[in-house]
This record gives sequence, C-alpha cells and structure tokens, in this order.
Amino acid sequence: MIKPLVSLIDAFKKLPGVGQKQAERFAFFIIRSPQNDAENLASSIINTKKSIKTCSICASLCEKSPCEICSDENRDRKKICVVENYTDLQVIEKTGRYKGLYHVLSGVLSPLDGVHQDNLTLKLLMKRLDAVEEILIATNPTVEGDATAMYISQLVKPHNIKITRLAKGIPSGGSIEYSDEITLINALDGRKEI
Amino acid sequence: MIKPLVSLIDAFKKLPGVGQKQAERFAFFIIRSPQNDAENLASSIINTKKSIKTCSICASLCEKSPCEICSDENRDRKKICVVENYTDLQVIEKTGRYKGLYHVLSGVLSPLDGVHQDNLTLKLLMKRLDAVEEILIATNPTVEGDATAMYISQLVKPHNIKITRLAKGIPSGGSIEYSDEITLINALDGRKEI
Repeated sequence: MIKPLVSLIDAFKKLPGVGQKQAERFAFFIIRSPQNDAENLASSIINTKKSIKTCSICASLCEKSPCEICSDENRDRKKICVVENYTDLQVIEKTGRYKGLYHVLSGVLSPLDGVHQDNLTLKLLMKRLDAVEEILIATNPTVEGDATAMYISQLVKPHNIKITRLAKGIPSGGSIEYSDEITLINALDGRKEI
Repeated sequence: MIKPLVSLIDAFKKLPGVGQKQAERFAFFIIRSPQNDAENLASSIINTKKSIKTCSICASLCEKSPCEICSDENRDRKKICVVENYTDLQVIEKTGRYKGLYHVLSGVLSPLDGVHQDNLTLKLLMKRLDAVEEILIATNPTVEGDATAMYISQLVKPHNIKITRLAKGIPSGGSIEYSDEITLINALDGRKEI
C-alpha cells in the first residue's frame, strides 16, 4: 500500500476502539472528501490541542484558566460536585438543577488499571475545602466509582463537611420487573416519604 | 461545551459511521494524548490529501501517476483485472497469483444510490482495450456487483476480448451445511473436474 496512506491508517488506529478496517474506512473517506473538510479536521485537532487547558482550580477543561464555572461569582461557592470527568460535568450542568462548583477527578481509583490516588486530582480538591459546606460525590455507581467515593469521603470527613452522593434507585422510565437486585435494594434502602 | 472541543467533535462526526458518542471519545482522547501523536494524525491527514493522486491509466491510488503497477514492465500487459476499489486491488495483489494490470472502477452501478455509468471510470477502461486479451471482472458477488459485471461485459464484447469473472462457490474452510442456496447453486454450476 502507498506510504502516506499507511501512515494515515496507523494514525487513525491509535484512536480508541478503532481497528484496521475502520481506520481504512476513515482513510479512504479522507481521500475522497473535499479538501477543506480534511483540512478542517486536521486544524481542529491542532487547535484543540493548543487551546484547551486544565482549570487550575477544578481540573475541568477550559480555554482560559480558571474556567467559566470557577470564575462565575453567581454560583453557590459552598458546594462542590465531584465528577469523574468533563463529560459527566457537562451532563449534570445540562440538567440546570445544580448551581454549585465542580471538581473533575480525571478518572476513578482502579488499581488493576494502574490508577492510584496520585493519578487523580485529589490534592487539588483538598486545597479547596475551606468555606465549603457540602461535597456532592457524583462518581458512577460502579465498583470503582463506589470505592473512589468512599475514599474521598474518608479524606474529607475530618474537615467537618457534609458529604452527599447521588441517589441510587430505579431510573426514570425503568421497570421494577427488569431491575437488577442491587438496584432494587438501593431503591428500597433509599425510599422517601411522599 | 468549550468551542474548540465542539468543532473537533463535529469534524470527527463527519467520518463514516461515527456518531456523537464516538466523536466525543475521539476528541477527549486527542486532548489527553501526547502532543506529537495529535500532530502526527493532523499532518497525516494533510499529507495524504496532498500526496495521493489517481493513476491516469487505471484510476488506482498512487503517489506518482502512472502508478507502480501500470509502469511495471514485468507485468502481463495483456490482462486487466477490473475491481471496485483500491482495497480490493490490494487484497488480490496480496495473493501474488495475478500478474496482470488492474482497473479501479471507483464503485459499482447503483442507480438507487445515484451511481450511474458516468460516475465509474468506464471511459478510461474503454481506452485501454487495444492489445488486451483478457478482462477479468472482479466486482463483488452482490446484486450491484453482478449488474456492473454484466454491463462491462456488454461494453467490452464488441472488441473480441476474452471476458472472465472470479469463480463463485463455497469459500475455503466453509461448510456445505451452512451455505446459502445461491452459493450452493453457484458451486454446483461451477463444478470442476479433478
């Protein structure tokens, strides 16, 4: 195969979940696509790499540190919502229900994958605890997410701060019949008076 | 979401088969990946776009037209193998069994998808028929591939050239029990004395 094509396929293969066949499809698509579409993709990659920074306060992604949320004086600065990554922050932000600050962990504790406490932004979080009244831990309800939540709550406890976690239960629109046992146990334990 | 990130996700979404979620995964991967990996992908895209040309003889992809195969004097110039695209050419070339020239159609006739005879490189093929003794039509054994093969054979027939097609039958390692009816009929019709 022609050299530039091989190196393009190799470059695409580095993207997560992309194998030889899909990389080839991408490469042939690039060859057939209009010049400015291809240039646009290339410049977007360079531009993103150049202009996206990590917020020095909350470790979220931003164009200018500190990020928009951290520098927004109208937000409730007494609450910090701890999320695994920037995407989770976006999803929670979209609900419009939460008005506090965030802290992006950049992952969850997962010793088997080589992710230890030093790989997360925990030190940065510990620096922010003055004047904070509530830490809402919004890690995923997975084994790693639960372990990380537990670890953070133990770190934060000595500071006399209220620690909460997202409610676990049956998702909206879900069915009791097809819920797994652990979800049902969580829903029973977390039942609320109405 | 941050602007450069949004435009990167939009650019990735133009790749075939990539939706919002996968484009986001790609974009976050780019943000986390080392600077030179990202630059490598971007420059590969630009470089491929710049350096890959279409061969003026066989319509295959090449760095310099005419392509390596067309300019190779050691190949059997009396045979032309007609393939749908460059990938099929590569696969046949890998077998090492065929030593003739190629012709890349750049697709198959598919009126429903808006692909008509003028969209294929048929005119280019018709110019190459002098001194050719055999046209081996290697389109896929699909409805469109069969129709295209039939169309080409009708075009070529007046030139008194032998027209062949890849054999259809049970694939190597396949099973008779699980073969579909059409494959079995093809295998029966194409049976060979041993």
